[in-house]
Amino acid sequence: MKDLKYYIDRVGQIFEEECFIADPAELYAPIDYTLRLGGKRIRPTLLLVANAMFGGDIDAVRHAALGIETFHNFTLLHDDLMDRSPVRRGQPTVYVKWDENTAILSGDTMFALAWRYFLRQPTPHLQAILNTFNETAIEVCEGQQYDMNFERRDDVTIEQYMMMIRKKTAVLLAGALNIGALYAGAPTSEVEKLYRYGIHTGLAFQLQDDLLDGYGDTAVFGKKTGQDIRDNKKTYLPLRAAQMCDETQRRQLAALFSSHDIDEEEKVQQVMNLYDAVGLKCEVERAIATEFDAAHRALDSIGVADEAKEPLREMLAQLDGRKK
Amino acid sequence: MKDLKYYIDRVGQIFEEECFIADPAELYAPIDYTLRLGGKRIRPTLLLVANAMFGGDIDAVRHAALGIETFHNFTLLHDDLMDRSPVRRGQPTVYVKWDENTAILSGDTMFALAWRYFLRQPTPHLQAILNTFNETAIEVCEGQQYDMNFERRDDVTIEQYMMMIRKKTAVLLAGALNIGALYAGAPTSEVEKLYRYGIHTGLAFQLQDDLLDGYGDTAVFGKKTGQDIRDNKKTYLPLRAAQMCDETQRRQLAALFSSHDIDEEEKVQQVMNLYDAVGLKCEVERAIATEFDAAHRALDSIGVADEAKEPLREMLAQLDGRKK
Repeated sequence: MKDLKYYIDRVGQIFEEECFIADPAELYAPIDYTLRLGGKRIRPTLLLVANAMFGGDIDAVRHAALGIETFHNFTLLHDDLMDRSPVRRGQPTVYVKWDENTAILSGDTMFALAWRYFLRQPTPHLQAILNTFNETAIEVCEGQQYDMNFERRDDVTIEQYMMMIRKKTAVLLAGALNIGALYAGAPTSEVEKLYRYGIHTGLAFQLQDDLLDGYGDTAVFGKKTGQDIRDNKKTYLPLRAAQMCDETQRRQLAALFSSHDIDEEEKVQQVMNLYDAVGLKCEVERAIATEFDAAHRALDSIGVADEAKEPLREMLAQLDGRKK
Repeated sequence: MKDLKYYIDRVGQIFEEECFIADPAELYAPIDYTLRLGGKRIRPTLLLVANAMFGGDIDAVRHAALGIETFHNFTLLHDDLMDRSPVRRGQPTVYVKWDENTAILSGDTMFALAWRYFLRQPTPHLQAILNTFNETAIEVCEGQQYDMNFERRDDVTIEQYMMMIRKKTAVLLAGALNIGALYAGAPTSEVEKLYRYGIHTGLAFQLQDDLLDGYGDTAVFGKKTGQDIRDNKKTYLPLRAAQMCDETQRRQLAALFSSHDIDEEEKVQQVMNLYDAVGLKCEVERAIATEFDAAHRALDSIGVADEAKEPLREMLAQLDGRKK
């Protein structure tokens, strides 16, 4: 029986064995830098696990695993530039280490390289796989656009926020699972169940991110909490808090999230006090648990041997307990 | 017998009938703006012509035509941002009309939309077509990188310059022709001849661009000549001139192309005087004629009825005589 660690290790091996260097070096060195930084590589891992669940063979999807991670990293290069994020995985982002044009063009090339990987992976299901990949890519772009739109709005609803994080984060996890399953010839009904597992897992993951920003243990979380508050970022936390507040509190919260002149640490403290007053932490934990439950139910419903589902159960257990 | 204008008109019709608007509007409005601006749409026209040469039917490649032009315009969005070009087709470029992030993300989305078009176009030759498209895309990215690299170098050879414009400009014309022919089931040998036609046509086109910057008739050319000289841009003109110069002239030319303090119009005049002294115009016209000849020979060698080649001959005749 292969556990989650087995697949994580295999993904690590696949990336170690792959060469990302080519000419011109100015184009490919940033690609090599990015893909060698590692990170959790959760998407290729999900792809391998889903493939194995339906009897696939890792060697027959190694290029697809490289493809999905290369695509994900393309979005990071462009997102970090658009969001002006200077650090990723503890290292300077490409637009900082090189320059903006490098982040744009090496990113574009990574998108094309992702396609090259998928096109190199023989399969009778090519059309369905490429459609899944591409429609996912379009949704990820739309998600990033909604995210940027929402920063300029203060009337975003919880439903709109959930739609945004579904597109920006969840669909690519679900897409990776579906692509893995499609390579193994899984039937449509099971592919759809895996998709639900991926979506709910992705939503839980993003809501955890939002929660950790407010309530993470700085020592474990690895960064200062409250950054979303300092940035006036309307994540699930302020959106849900606004629903739970009375009129006075709601006005206070809105004022805090539109102020730029108040001392930053004072602002974080006041917002957290409001969150605590309405019992926000418990409420968000409940929302996360609901997503994890839905992911579990989707996984349970898939028609393969129970032990084949173990790695995806482990994934949920690890995410459920994560502190960073 | 259908002439070139017939195919140009059909491309215009295909774009008129297509809707590029979707949600979120912030993402898709710039895409609609770009694809509605028109331009020569030479790539989808080539795709339709090549398809018809081998007995294809326009309705069976209309999505592919949309795809190749959408891809081309994706590269324009990103190139214009990287090159800081504020105007394209007489209108403000996307990063100017909207902002930089819009140019990045709407561009990314156009790359994915190009894939969606190709994936929607049914064909038994899907794998070969998508490979051609994607390898072309990678070369276009590499070409743009070389172009940016060369701006920071002053030891670029003519061979390196030709390699750069081949990747940046010519391969996409050749790729469009190949994709059109592949949809019609053309044999590999003929596809390769079309490729050569496309490459030589693309090289001739780019060398003409370089020549027109120096020797275009401002009234017809539509913009002031000498802009490449003002920008110290090492196009085919200064590279070839340097080969034709004696040692004293070469030093003068190098000094002019690295100076920033000399009056711009005075600089243009001095460079043009040097060009004239070595007979550069005639030499570049000869190089362009050589490329057009090679394109004609490649076209002649293709094994289809002569009248089916007429639109591509017309294309060469029109380009050959172009003054802008």
